[in-house]
Amino acid sequence: MTAIERYLALSASELRFAVEELYADYEACLNEERFEDWAEFFADPCLYKIVPRENFERGLPLATWLCESKGYLADRVSAIRKTAVYAPRTVRRMVSGIRVLGWTAAVLEVRASYLAVETLQDELTRVFNAGECRDKLVVDGGKLRFREKVCIFDSILVPNSLIYPL
Amino acid sequence: MTAIERYLALSASELRFAVEELYADYEACLNEERFEDWAEFFADPCLYKIVPRENFERGLPLATWLCESKGYLADRVSAIRKTAVYAPRTVRRMVSGIRVLGWTAAVLEVRASYLAVETLQDELTRVFNAGECRDKLVVDGGKLRFREKVCIFDSILVPNSLIYPL
Amino acid sequence: MTAIERYLALSASELRFAVEELYADYEACLNEERFEDWAEFFADPCLYKIVPRENFERGLPLATWLCESKGYLADRVSAIRKTAVYAPRTVRRMVSGIRVLGWTAAVLEVRASYLAVETLQDELTRVFNAGECRDKLVVDGGKLRFREKVCIFDSILVPNSLIYPL
Repeated sequence: MTAIERYLALSASELRFAVEELYADYEACLNEERFEDWAEFFADPCLYKIVPRENFERGLPLATWLCESKGYLADRVSAIRKTAVYAPRTVRRMVSGIRVLGWTAAVLEVRASYLAVETLQDELTRVFNAGECRDKLVVDGGKLRFREKVCIFDSILVPNSLIYPL
Repeated sequence: MTAIERYLALSASELRFAVEELYADYEACLNEERFEDWAEFFADPCLYKIVPRENFERGLPLATWLCESKGYLADRVSAIRKTAVYAPRTVRRMVSGIRVLGWTAAVLEVRASYLAVETLQDELTRVFNAGECRDKLVVDGGKLRFREKVCIFDSILVPNSLIYPL
Repeated sequence: MTAIERYLALSASELRFAVEELYADYEACLNEERFEDWAEFFADPCLYKIVPRENFERGLPLATWLCESKGYLADRVSAIRKTAVYAPRTVRRMVSGIRVLGWTAAVLEVRASYLAVETLQDELTRVFNAGECRDKLVVDGGKLRFREKVCIFDSILVPNSLIYPL
Protein backbone atom coordinates (compact mmCIF):
# COMPACT_ATOMS: atom_id res chain seq x y z
CA MET A 1 0.00 0.00 0.00
CA THR A 2 1.50 3.34 -1.01
CA ALA A 3 1.40 6.42 1.25
CA ILE A 4 -1.40 8.02 -0.78
CA GLU A 5 -3.43 4.78 -0.63
CA ARG A 6 -3.02 4.75 3.15
CA TYR A 7 -4.31 8.32 3.39
CA LEU A 8 -7.21 7.66 1.01
CA ALA A 9 -8.20 4.65 3.16
CA LEU A 10 -8.47 6.68 6.38
CA SER A 11 -11.88 7.12 7.98
CA ALA A 12 -13.27 10.67 8.17
CA SER A 13 -12.30 10.97 11.85
CA GLU A 14 -8.79 9.58 11.30
CA LEU A 15 -8.26 12.01 8.42
CA ARG A 16 -9.50 14.91 10.54
CA PHE A 17 -7.05 13.87 13.24
CA ALA A 18 -4.16 13.89 10.71
CA VAL A 19 -5.19 17.31 9.39
CA GLU A 20 -5.54 18.80 12.88
CA GLU A 21 -2.04 17.59 13.74
CA LEU A 22 -0.65 19.11 10.54
CA TYR A 23 -2.24 22.50 11.24
CA ALA A 24 -1.05 22.50 14.86
CA ASP A 25 2.50 21.67 13.71
CA TYR A 26 2.35 24.37 11.03
CA GLU A 27 1.15 27.01 13.51
CA ALA A 28 3.83 26.02 16.02
CA CYS A 29 6.58 26.20 13.37
CA LEU A 30 5.66 29.83 12.64
CA ASN A 31 4.72 30.85 16.19
CA GLU A 32 8.09 29.58 17.44
CA GLU A 33 9.81 31.40 14.54
CA ARG A 34 11.37 28.24 13.14
CA PHE A 35 11.05 29.86 9.69
CA GLU A 36 13.77 27.67 8.16
CA ASP A 37 11.47 24.63 8.66
CA TRP A 38 8.49 26.35 7.06
CA ALA A 39 9.11 25.36 3.42
CA GLU A 40 9.04 21.68 4.44
CA PHE A 41 5.28 21.95 4.96
CA PHE A 42 4.89 22.49 1.20
CA ALA A 43 5.10 20.29 -1.87
CA ASP A 44 7.15 21.57 -4.80
CA PRO A 45 5.95 23.37 -6.89
CA CYS A 46 3.39 25.03 -4.63
CA LEU A 47 1.27 28.13 -4.35
CA TYR A 48 1.48 30.27 -1.22
CA LYS A 49 -0.58 33.40 -1.34
CA ILE A 50 -1.82 36.06 1.08
CA VAL A 51 -4.53 38.16 -0.49
CA PRO A 52 -7.17 40.65 0.72
CA ARG A 53 -10.70 39.26 0.49
CA GLU A 54 -11.84 41.92 -1.95
CA ASN A 55 -9.10 41.05 -4.45
CA PHE A 56 -9.85 37.35 -4.01
CA GLU A 57 -13.58 37.78 -4.61
CA ARG A 58 -13.09 39.99 -7.65
CA GLY A 59 -10.52 37.59 -9.07
CA LEU A 60 -7.86 40.31 -9.10
CA PRO A 61 -4.36 38.88 -9.44
CA LEU A 62 -2.77 41.28 -6.95
CA ALA A 63 -1.53 39.47 -3.84
CA THR A 64 0.26 40.77 -0.75
CA TRP A 65 2.50 37.69 -0.78
CA LEU A 66 2.96 35.24 -3.62
CA CYS A 67 5.37 32.29 -3.70
CA GLU A 68 5.24 29.51 -6.28
CA SER A 69 7.98 27.12 -5.19
CA LYS A 70 9.78 25.90 -2.08
CA GLY A 71 12.83 27.82 -3.25
CA TYR A 72 10.82 31.02 -3.27
CA LEU A 73 9.55 30.31 0.26
CA ALA A 74 13.15 29.79 1.42
CA ASP A 75 14.16 33.06 -0.25
CA ARG A 76 11.49 34.93 1.68
CA VAL A 77 12.79 33.45 4.91
CA SER A 78 16.36 34.52 4.06
CA ALA A 79 15.08 38.03 3.39
CA ILE A 80 13.29 38.08 6.76
CA ARG A 81 16.41 36.93 8.57
CA LYS A 82 18.69 39.45 6.81
CA THR A 83 16.43 42.46 7.17
CA ALA A 84 16.07 44.25 10.46
CA VAL A 85 14.39 47.46 9.45
CA TYR A 86 11.22 46.68 11.35
CA ALA A 87 10.50 46.78 15.06
CA PRO A 88 10.85 43.43 16.88
CA ARG A 89 7.53 41.70 17.26
CA THR A 90 5.92 38.35 17.99
CA VAL A 91 3.08 37.10 15.82
CA ARG A 92 0.89 34.30 17.16
CA ARG A 93 -1.46 32.43 14.85
CA MET A 94 -4.61 30.68 16.08
CA VAL A 95 -6.81 28.42 13.93
CA SER A 96 -10.49 27.51 14.31
CA GLY A 97 -13.16 25.70 12.38
CA ILE A 98 -10.99 23.31 10.39
CA ARG A 99 -13.11 21.72 7.65
CA VAL A 100 -11.89 18.73 5.69
CA LEU A 101 -13.86 19.07 2.45
CA GLY A 102 -12.62 15.83 0.90
CA TRP A 103 -10.42 14.35 -1.79
CA THR A 104 -10.59 15.23 -5.49
CA ALA A 105 -8.33 12.64 -7.08
CA ALA A 106 -5.22 12.86 -4.86
CA VAL A 107 -5.81 16.42 -3.62
CA LEU A 108 -7.43 17.09 -0.24
CA GLU A 109 -9.25 20.37 0.20
CA VAL A 110 -9.21 21.95 3.66
CA ARG A 111 -10.50 25.30 4.92
CA ALA A 112 -10.14 27.03 8.27
CA SER A 113 -10.39 30.42 9.94
CA TYR A 114 -7.27 32.02 11.35
CA LEU A 115 -6.58 34.88 13.71
CA ALA A 116 -3.12 36.40 14.11
CA VAL A 117 -2.28 38.59 17.10
CA GLU A 118 0.84 40.70 17.25
CA THR A 119 2.96 41.89 20.14
CA LEU A 120 5.49 44.66 19.62
CA GLN A 121 8.24 45.06 22.17
CA ASP A 122 7.02 47.14 25.10
CA GLU A 123 3.44 47.00 23.86
CA LEU A 124 0.42 44.89 24.69
CA THR A 125 -0.85 42.19 22.35
CA ARG A 126 -3.35 43.28 19.70
CA VAL A 127 -5.31 41.76 16.84
CA PHE A 128 -3.21 41.82 13.71
CA ASN A 129 -4.96 39.96 10.92
CA ALA A 130 -7.86 37.52 10.51
CA GLY A 131 -9.19 35.56 7.61
CA GLU A 132 -9.71 32.21 5.98
CA CYS A 133 -7.25 29.62 4.66
CA ARG A 134 -8.27 27.75 1.53
CA ASP A 135 -5.75 24.99 1.21
CA LYS A 136 -5.03 22.03 -1.06
CA LEU A 137 -3.03 19.19 0.41
CA VAL A 138 -1.22 16.32 -1.26
CA VAL A 139 0.69 13.31 0.01
CA ASP A 140 4.33 14.02 -0.73
CA GLY A 141 7.31 12.15 0.70
CA GLY A 142 4.91 10.02 2.75
CA LYS A 143 3.11 12.85 4.53
CA LEU A 144 0.50 15.55 3.98
CA ARG A 145 1.94 18.79 2.57
CA PHE A 146 0.45 21.95 1.10
CA ARG A 147 0.18 22.10 -2.66
CA GLU A 148 -1.67 25.36 -2.18
CA LYS A 149 -2.13 27.59 0.84
CA VAL A 150 -4.18 30.71 0.22
CA CYS A 151 -4.75 33.08 3.16
CA ILE A 152 -7.62 35.46 2.39
CA PHE A 153 -7.68 38.24 4.98
CA ASP A 154 -10.82 40.12 5.92
CA SER A 155 -9.40 43.62 5.83
CA ILE A 156 -9.01 45.62 2.67
CA LEU A 157 -6.07 47.31 4.32
CA VAL A 158 -2.73 45.68 3.77
CA PRO A 159 -1.05 45.68 7.17
CA ASN A 160 2.27 47.42 6.53
CA SER A 161 3.89 44.97 8.87
CA LEU A 162 3.05 41.71 7.11
CA ILE A 163 6.64 40.62 7.51
CA TYR A 164 6.24 37.04 8.68
CA PRO A 165 4.26 34.27 6.99
CA LEU A 166 0.77 33.31 8.14
CA MET B 1 -31.31 1.35 13.55
CA THR B 2 -32.78 4.85 13.47
CA ALA B 3 -30.66 7.99 13.13
CA ILE B 4 -31.00 8.84 16.80
CA GLU B 5 -29.99 5.29 17.77
CA ARG B 6 -26.91 5.57 15.58
CA TYR B 7 -25.91 8.83 17.31
CA LEU B 8 -26.60 7.42 20.78
CA ALA B 9 -24.37 4.43 19.95
CA LEU B 10 -21.34 6.57 19.03
CA SER B 11 -18.26 6.40 21.25
CA ALA B 12 -17.26 9.59 23.08
CA SER B 13 -14.52 10.35 20.54
CA GLU B 14 -16.78 9.67 17.53
CA LEU B 15 -19.44 11.96 19.00
CA ARG B 16 -16.86 14.69 19.65
CA PHE B 17 -15.76 14.34 16.02
CA ALA B 18 -19.37 14.79 14.81
CA VAL B 19 -19.87 17.82 17.05
CA GLU B 20 -16.59 19.45 15.96
CA GLU B 21 -17.62 19.03 12.32
CA LEU B 22 -21.02 20.59 13.01
CA TYR B 23 -19.49 23.60 14.75
CA ALA B 24 -16.91 24.11 11.98
CA ASP B 25 -19.68 23.95 9.35
CA TYR B 26 -21.83 26.38 11.36
CA GLU B 27 -18.96 28.88 11.72
CA ALA B 28 -18.14 28.63 8.02
CA CYS B 29 -21.77 29.19 7.02
CA LEU B 30 -21.80 32.49 8.92
CA ASN B 31 -18.21 33.54 8.20
CA GLU B 32 -18.83 33.08 4.48
CA GLU B 33 -22.10 35.01 4.81
CA ARG B 34 -24.24 32.14 3.51
CA PHE B 35 -27.00 33.43 5.79
CA GLU B 36 -29.76 31.76 3.76
CA ASP B 37 -28.35 28.36 4.82
CA TRP B 38 -28.20 29.31 8.49
CA ALA B 39 -31.73 28.22 9.53
CA GLU B 40 -30.96 24.68 8.31
CA PHE B 41 -28.64 24.20 11.29
CA PHE B 42 -31.71 24.40 13.57
CA ALA B 43 -34.58 22.09 14.42
CA ASP B 44 -38.08 23.55 14.38
CA PRO B 45 -39.22 24.92 16.81
CA CYS B 46 -35.93 26.18 18.22
CA LEU B 47 -34.53 28.79 20.53
CA TYR B 48 -31.82 31.14 19.28
CA LYS B 49 -30.77 33.76 21.76
CA ILE B 50 -27.94 36.27 22.19
CA VAL B 51 -27.88 37.65 25.71
CA PRO B 52 -25.45 39.62 27.89
CA ARG B 53 -23.97 37.52 30.69
CA GLU B 54 -25.42 39.72 33.40
CA ASN B 55 -28.97 39.26 32.12
CA PHE B 56 -28.41 35.52 31.76
CA GLU B 57 -27.08 35.12 35.30
CA ARG B 58 -29.86 37.18 36.83
CA GLY B 59 -32.47 35.28 34.84
CA LEU B 60 -33.68 38.48 33.17
CA PRO B 61 -35.75 37.79 30.05
CA LEU B 62 -34.26 40.64 28.00
CA ALA B 63 -32.23 39.32 25.06
CA THR B 64 -30.36 41.16 22.32
CA TRP B 65 -31.62 38.61 19.78
CA LEU B 66 -34.41 36.13 20.24
CA CYS B 67 -35.79 33.73 17.62
CA GLU B 68 -38.11 30.83 18.38
CA SER B 69 -38.58 29.12 15.04
CA LYS B 70 -36.81 28.50 11.74
CA GLY B 71 -39.24 30.94 10.13
CA TYR B 72 -38.14 33.64 12.52
CA LEU B 73 -34.47 32.92 11.73
CA ALA B 74 -35.24 33.24 8.02
CA ASP B 75 -37.05 36.53 8.65
CA ARG B 76 -33.99 37.93 10.37
CA VAL B 77 -31.87 36.98 7.39
CA SER B 78 -34.30 38.68 5.00
CA ALA B 79 -34.11 41.80 7.16
CA ILE B 80 -30.29 41.72 7.06
CA ARG B 81 -30.31 41.36 3.29
CA LYS B 82 -32.83 44.15 2.75
CA THR B 83 -31.29 46.67 5.11
CA ALA B 84 -28.18 48.58 4.19
CA VAL B 85 -28.11 51.32 6.76
CA TYR B 86 -24.95 50.02 8.40
CA ALA B 87 -21.34 50.22 7.24
CA PRO B 88 -20.09 47.15 5.33
CA ARG B 89 -18.19 44.79 7.60
CA THR B 90 -16.92 41.24 7.90
CA VAL B 91 -17.48 39.28 11.10
CA ARG B 92 -15.35 36.19 11.71
CA ARG B 93 -16.28 33.72 14.43
CA MET B 94 -13.76 31.43 16.13
CA VAL B 95 -14.64 28.64 18.56
CA SER B 96 -12.56 27.04 21.31
CA GLY B 97 -13.01 24.58 24.13
CA ILE B 98 -15.92 22.56 22.76
CA ARG B 99 -17.33 20.38 25.53
CA VAL B 100 -19.76 17.58 24.82
CA LEU B 101 -21.59 17.29 28.15
CA GLY B 102 -23.68 14.27 27.17
CA TRP B 103 -27.17 13.10 26.30
CA THR B 104 -30.27 13.69 28.41
CA ALA B 105 -32.86 11.50 26.73
CA ALA B 106 -32.45 12.50 23.06
CA VAL B 107 -30.93 15.93 23.72
CA LEU B 108 -27.17 16.50 23.58
CA GLU B 109 -25.76 19.36 25.60
CA VAL B 110 -22.69 21.14 24.21
CA ARG B 111 -20.82 24.22 25.40
CA ALA B 112 -18.00 26.22 23.83
CA SER B 113 -16.28 29.59 23.95
CA TYR B 114 -16.50 31.89 20.96
CA LEU B 115 -14.67 34.98 19.83
CA ALA B 116 -15.94 37.20 17.03
CA VAL B 117 -13.66 39.71 15.33
CA GLU B 118 -14.96 42.43 13.06
CA THR B 119 -13.43 44.23 10.11
CA LEU B 120 -15.00 47.42 8.81
CA GLN B 121 -14.12 48.55 5.33
CA ASP B 122 -10.87 50.53 5.37
CA GLU B 123 -10.20 49.58 8.98
CA LEU B 124 -8.09 46.94 10.68
CA THR B 125 -9.63 43.88 12.32
CA ARG B 126 -10.67 44.24 15.97
CA VAL B 127 -12.27 42.17 18.70
CA PHE B 128 -16.02 42.44 18.45
CA ASN B 129 -17.68 40.09 20.90
CA ALA B 130 -16.72 37.09 23.05
CA GLY B 131 -18.69 34.71 25.16
CA GLU B 132 -19.99 31.21 25.68
CA CYS B 133 -22.45 29.10 23.70
CA ARG B 134 -24.77 26.85 25.69
CA ASP B 135 -26.38 24.64 23.12
CA LYS B 136 -28.85 21.76 22.99
CA LEU B 137 -28.66 19.49 19.97
CA VAL B 138 -31.12 16.95 18.65
CA VAL B 139 -31.09 14.48 15.78
CA ASP B 140 -33.47 15.88 13.22
CA GLY B 141 -33.77 14.77 9.59
CA GLY B 142 -30.91 12.33 10.18
CA LYS B 143 -28.36 14.85 11.44
CA LEU B 144 -27.45 16.92 14.48
CA ARG B 145 -29.23 20.27 14.63
CA PHE B 146 -29.64 22.95 17.27
CA ARG B 147 -32.80 22.80 19.36
CA GLU B 148 -31.32 25.64 21.40
CA LYS B 149 -28.36 27.91 20.78
CA VAL B 150 -27.77 30.50 23.48
CA CYS B 151 -24.83 32.89 23.03
CA ILE B 152 -23.99 34.58 26.34
CA PHE B 153 -21.60 37.44 25.72
CA ASP B 154 -19.15 38.70 28.32
CA SER B 155 -19.78 42.40 27.91
CA ILE B 156 -22.64 44.23 29.55
CA LEU B 157 -22.55 46.58 26.61
CA VAL B 158 -24.73 45.64 23.71
CA PRO B 159 -22.61 46.23 20.62
CA ASN B 160 -24.72 48.54 18.50
CA SER B 161 -23.58 46.65 15.46
CA LEU B 162 -24.84 43.17 16.33
CA ILE B 163 -26.30 42.88 12.87
CA TYR B 164 -25.24 39.37 11.88
CA PRO B 165 -25.85 36.14 13.80
CA LEU B 166 -23.18 34.57 15.99
CA MET C 1 -4.17 -2.83 33.78
CA THR C 2 -3.36 0.27 35.82
CA ALA C 3 -4.58 3.74 34.85
CA ILE C 4 -1.17 4.77 33.51
CA GLU C 5 -0.96 1.55 31.44
CA ARG C 6 -4.38 2.33 29.95
CA TYR C 7 -3.21 5.82 28.95
CA LEU C 8 0.10 4.54 27.55
CA ALA C 9 -1.85 2.02 25.43
CA LEU C 10 -4.05 4.67 23.76
CA SER C 11 -3.63 5.28 20.04
CA ALA C 12 -2.38 8.73 18.98
CA SER C 13 -5.89 9.85 18.05
CA GLU C 14 -7.46 8.52 21.30
CA LEU C 15 -4.77 10.31 23.31
CA ARG C 16 -5.36 13.55 21.38
CA PHE C 17 -9.07 13.20 22.14
CA ALA C 18 -8.33 12.81 25.89
CA VAL C 19 -6.00 15.82 25.87
CA GLU C 20 -8.49 18.01 23.96
CA GLU C 21 -11.17 17.14 26.50
CA LEU C 22 -8.84 18.01 29.39
CA TYR C 23 -7.95 21.40 27.87
CA ALA C 24 -11.60 22.22 27.16
CA ASP C 25 -12.53 21.32 30.75
CA TYR C 26 -9.63 23.39 32.11
CA GLU C 27 -10.62 26.44 30.02
CA ALA C 28 -14.25 26.12 31.07
CA CYS C 29 -13.33 25.86 34.77
CA LEU C 30 -11.50 29.20 34.56
CA ASN C 31 -13.85 30.90 32.09
CA GLU C 32 -16.80 30.08 34.32
CA GLU C 33 -14.83 31.31 37.35
CA ARG C 34 -15.06 27.99 39.19
CA PHE C 35 -11.66 28.84 40.69
CA GLU C 36 -12.14 26.50 43.65
CA ASP C 37 -12.06 23.54 41.22
CA TRP C 38 -8.89 24.74 39.52
CA ALA C 39 -6.31 23.02 41.77
CA GLU C 40 -7.91 19.64 40.96
CA PHE C 41 -6.45 19.86 37.44
CA PHE C 42 -2.96 19.57 38.97
CA ALA C 43 -0.92 16.77 40.51
CA ASP C 44 0.84 17.48 43.81
CA PRO C 45 3.56 18.75 43.89
CA CYS C 46 3.24 20.75 40.68
CA LEU C 47 4.67 23.74 38.91
CA TYR C 48 2.37 26.51 37.71
CA LYS C 49 4.14 29.45 36.18
CA ILE C 50 3.23 32.51 34.10
CA VAL C 51 6.32 34.10 32.65
CA PRO C 52 7.11 36.68 29.94
CA ARG C 53 8.76 35.14 26.88
CA GLU C 54 11.92 37.16 27.25
CA ASN C 55 12.53 35.89 30.78
CA PHE C 56 11.76 32.34 29.69
CA GLU C 57 14.17 32.47 26.75
CA ARG C 58 16.96 33.99 28.80
CA GLY C 59 16.42 31.46 31.59
CA LEU C 60 15.70 34.23 34.09
CA PRO C 61 13.95 32.90 37.22
CA LEU C 62 11.57 35.86 37.55
CA ALA C 63 7.95 34.80 36.98
CA THR C 64 4.74 36.79 37.13
CA TRP C 65 3.04 33.88 38.90
CA LEU C 66 4.70 30.89 40.51
CA CYS C 67 2.98 28.10 42.43
CA GLU C 68 4.64 24.85 43.42
CA SER C 69 1.89 22.86 45.08
CA LYS C 70 -1.88 22.40 45.07
CA GLY C 71 -1.98 24.17 48.44
CA TYR C 72 -0.33 27.20 46.91
CA LEU C 73 -2.84 27.19 44.02
CA ALA C 74 -5.69 27.08 46.56
CA ASP C 75 -4.10 29.98 48.48
CA ARG C 76 -4.05 32.08 45.33
CA VAL C 77 -7.72 31.40 44.79
CA SER C 78 -8.54 32.41 48.37
CA ALA C 79 -6.61 35.64 47.83
CA ILE C 80 -8.58 36.33 44.62
CA ARG C 81 -11.87 35.73 46.40
CA LYS C 82 -10.98 37.92 49.37
CA THR C 83 -9.56 40.83 47.44
CA ALA C 84 -11.79 43.30 45.69
CA VAL C 85 -9.44 46.15 44.94
CA TYR C 86 -9.64 45.66 41.20
CA ALA C 87 -12.41 46.47 38.76
CA PRO C 88 -14.82 43.62 37.96
CA ARG C 89 -13.88 41.85 34.75
CA THR C 90 -14.40 38.67 32.77
CA VAL C 91 -11.43 36.86 31.28
CA ARG C 92 -12.08 34.33 28.52
CA ARG C 93 -9.35 31.92 27.47
CA MET C 94 -9.20 30.32 24.02
CA VAL C 95 -6.77 27.55 22.99
CA SER C 96 -5.47 26.60 19.55
CA GLY C 97 -2.89 24.30 18.03
CA ILE C 98 -2.77 21.64 20.73
CA ARG C 99 0.24 19.41 20.10
CA VAL C 100 0.70 16.12 21.93
CA LEU C 101 4.48 15.69 21.82
CA GLY C 102 4.52 12.25 23.42
CA TRP C 103 5.41 10.32 26.56
CA THR C 104 8.80 10.40 28.28
CA ALA C 105 8.51 7.62 30.85
CA ALA C 106 5.14 8.44 32.48
CA VAL C 107 5.13 12.15 31.60
CA LEU C 108 3.20 13.46 28.59
CA GLU C 109 4.40 16.68 27.01
CA VAL C 110 1.75 18.96 25.46
CA ARG C 111 2.02 22.43 23.95
CA ALA C 112 -0.64 24.86 22.75
CA SER C 113 -1.23 28.51 21.95
CA TYR C 114 -3.63 30.51 24.08
CA LEU C 115 -5.37 33.83 23.73
CA ALA C 116 -7.09 35.55 26.64
CA VAL C 117 -9.58 38.35 26.07
CA GLU C 118 -10.81 40.59 28.85
CA THR C 119 -14.05 42.45 29.38
CA LEU C 120 -14.28 45.15 32.02
CA GLN C 121 -17.70 46.20 33.21
CA ASP C 122 -19.16 48.80 30.84
CA GLU C 123 -16.38 48.27 28.31
CA LEU C 124 -16.04 46.24 25.15
CA THR C 125 -13.99 43.06 25.01
CA ARG C 126 -10.28 43.45 24.19
CA VAL C 127 -7.22 41.27 23.76
CA PHE C 128 -5.59 40.75 27.13
CA ASN C 129 -2.74 38.27 26.84
CA ALA C 130 -1.48 35.68 24.35
CA GLY C 131 1.22 33.08 24.48
CA GLU C 132 2.16 29.45 24.59
CA CYS C 133 1.53 26.74 27.20
CA ARG C 134 4.30 24.20 27.71
CA ASP C 135 2.76 21.54 29.87
CA LYS C 136 3.73 18.21 31.41
CA LEU C 137 0.91 15.83 32.24
CA VAL C 138 0.86 12.76 34.45
CA VAL C 139 -1.77 10.17 35.28
CA ASP C 140 -2.78 10.87 38.87
CA GLY C 141 -5.83 9.48 40.64
CA GLY C 142 -6.83 7.72 37.40
CA LYS C 143 -6.88 10.79 35.16
CA LEU C 144 -4.58 13.21 33.34
CA ARG C 145 -3.44 16.12 35.49
CA PHE C 146 -0.81 18.84 35.12
CA ARG C 147 2.54 18.16 36.75
CA GLU C 148 3.71 21.37 35.11
CA LYS C 149 1.83 24.18 33.37
CA VAL C 150 4.01 27.00 32.10
CA CYS C 151 2.29 29.92 30.33
CA ILE C 152 4.83 31.95 28.37
CA PHE C 153 3.25 35.20 27.26
CA ASP C 154 4.37 37.10 24.19
CA SER C 155 4.49 40.56 25.70
CA ILE C 156 7.40 41.86 27.72
CA LEU C 157 4.89 43.97 29.56
CA VAL C 158 3.35 42.41 32.63
CA PRO C 159 -0.35 43.24 32.45
CA ASN C 160 -1.05 44.92 35.78
CA SER C 161 -4.34 43.10 35.88
CA LEU C 162 -3.11 39.50 35.79
CA ILE C 163 -5.42 38.68 38.65
CA TYR C 164 -6.95 35.41 37.49
CA PRO C 165 -5.12 32.27 36.40
CA LEU C 166 -4.60 31.42 32.73
